[in-house]
Amino acid sequence: MARPPADPVQLFGAALEGDRSSTARLLSLIERGGDPAREVGRLAYPRSGDGYTVGLTGAPGAGKSTLTSALIGHLRSLELEVAVLAIDPSSPFTGGAILGDRVRMQDHATDPGVFIRSMATRGHLGGLSLATPEAVRLLDALGRQWILIETVGVGQVEVEVAGKADTTVVVVNPGWGDSVQANKAGLMEIADVFVINKADRAGVDETRRDLEQMLDLSELPHDSWRPPIVATVAADGTGVPDLWDAVLAHREHAESSGLLSERREFRTREELREIVANRLHERARQLCTGDRWDELTESVVGRTVDPWAAADEMLDGVDA
Amino acid sequence: MARPPADPVQLFGAALEGDRSSTARLLSLIERGGDPAREVGRLAYPRSGDGYTVGLTGAPGAGKSTLTSALIGHLRSLELEVAVLAIDPSSPFTGGAILGDRVRMQDHATDPGVFIRSMATRGHLGGLSLATPEAVRLLDALGRQWILIETVGVGQVEVEVAGKADTTVVVVNPGWGDSVQANKAGLMEIADVFVINKADRAGVDETRRDLEQMLDLSELPHDSWRPPIVATVAADGTGVPDLWDAVLAHREHAESSGLLSERREFRTREELREIVANRLHERARQLCTGDRWDELTESVVGRTVDPWAAADEMLDGVDA
Repeated sequence: MARPPADPVQLFGAALEGDRSSTARLLSLIERGGDPAREVGRLAYPRSGDGYTVGLTGAPGAGKSTLTSALIGHLRSLELEVAVLAIDPSSPFTGGAILGDRVRMQDHATDPGVFIRSMATRGHLGGLSLATPEAVRLLDALGRQWILIETVGVGQVEVEVAGKADTTVVVVNPGWGDSVQANKAGLMEIADVFVINKADRAGVDETRRDLEQMLDLSELPHDSWRPPIVATVAADGTGVPDLWDAVLAHREHAESSGLLSERREFRTREELREIVANRLHERARQLCTGDRWDELTESVVGRTVDPWAAADEMLDGVDA
Repeated sequence: MARPPADPVQLFGAALEGDRSSTARLLSLIERGGDPAREVGRLAYPRSGDGYTVGLTGAPGAGKSTLTSALIGHLRSLELEVAVLAIDPSSPFTGGAILGDRVRMQDHATDPGVFIRSMATRGHLGGLSLATPEAVRLLDALGRQWILIETVGVGQVEVEVAGKADTTVVVVNPGWGDSVQANKAGLMEIADVFVINKADRAGVDETRRDLEQMLDLSELPHDSWRPPIVATVAADGTGVPDLWDAVLAHREHAESSGLLSERREFRTREELREIVANRLHERARQLCTGDRWDELTESVVGRTVDPWAAADEMLDGVDA
């Protein structure tokens, strides 16, 4: 709060020199949105494009955080550097972020080869779906080759964000079912790799059969890639190297088949569309104030005008 | 598929006469969105305003469906008619709806005093947050005094939709915690009544203490209403009359304190804003096509133009 106003150009310069607190402050600017976020984006954009993103999603309690931590450990043992974005969708009401169990991740907090950051939207109009790619591009521009995107829950926003990674890992547990009921189909569609975590529990074979069956029934082309199913016990590291090999195999497939560039182009197109929609949204916000707006709202509340007619009238002025 | 095209006016007339299949078809029109949905809205709007909505939300597996069914039974024993909208957010990818466990609800399927419908968005641009109030107004216009809105999961859309009811019931279980981690704060904020369902399990007292404590700590004004906490076993009906009494008490409070009309006005304002935003969004969609759009996307993919500059250029033409 008492800090001097952050200048994106200065911060970006310092971050390029390896100053972690500048990186953190740039990410805060992105979270807050507005012109400073855009400035950060402008700086990062031309330098980005080399990083590779791996999304991890799954129901709360599936062990994503522990698995992410285990993956970090594995990557470090391979002498790879890694950045982690933990996506915490805010409550739609408070705007406050709720942190998941990040305890294990703190093991890596002092390792300079690891950068971990929770992301929420504190004001970014585009929400996490626009703020996340901006954060990824920043980390990418700063030279992070591997960027893990871990989501806290399994809501629509989180599935969407995780599904926009270059490789998406869906984490389930033996006997998954009820807890992801509402989003099972969404998860099936975005999975490039399945992990059955907590595989020391009963029910691994059934879950594997269940997943295989769903893959058999799936009408999705999966671009000739059938998501492999890896069993892990993240808490003790069992299966984590296999998981990483599956990610690497998918990356190789995605790069050689052209899938990766296709996906990235598709995402760019989507993002651009979203930015345009957002600008218009912002205009709607500005539009929906003032006396005329108040009068119209009252008419709608009093049921003398229906909402669609009122919207038409509001838009009438702008759309010349 | 083979049916003749539905005429909203004819269907609305038949629905007013009590024809249930016409009601169902009108709801399908709302789900699909576009001009026919708008026409349905125009017909319903002036006739609506008497119905009262009760939202039920909570984590998957909390027993919302069973509780809804038990509530229906209780309302029927009081000779009240009831309509139920079960909100199923579609997968963001397929647009397909996944039905939750509706088995118990089928008990009421043949009762003419009960109307049950699953809602998804099959094309409605505003998604469930716009389609749901339209569906509510239709049922309201058709004379349903009590409209229950049950959500399948606890994602952002569902919490939002449930939170827009006149009275919102949040369903938890003894030992709730992990499963609603990501949205606990959101749930706390929208709750007018708490239900600890499956109260025949261990941990009811702890859960009650936990909730009381969260209410004590809550800085929300709650408009001088402190959400009561009711214990139920929906499967055998225990506590269901108490739950209903709590709903009625909240309704009385909301009506006499002015909270209800305040909330409804706020919701109208929000909806109007959303409709305006949607129209603009639709314009963005139309905008983001064609040769110029393709060229710009390619420049962004090739990193010669950043996405914000590209968006500016796309919007340049419209914003005269």
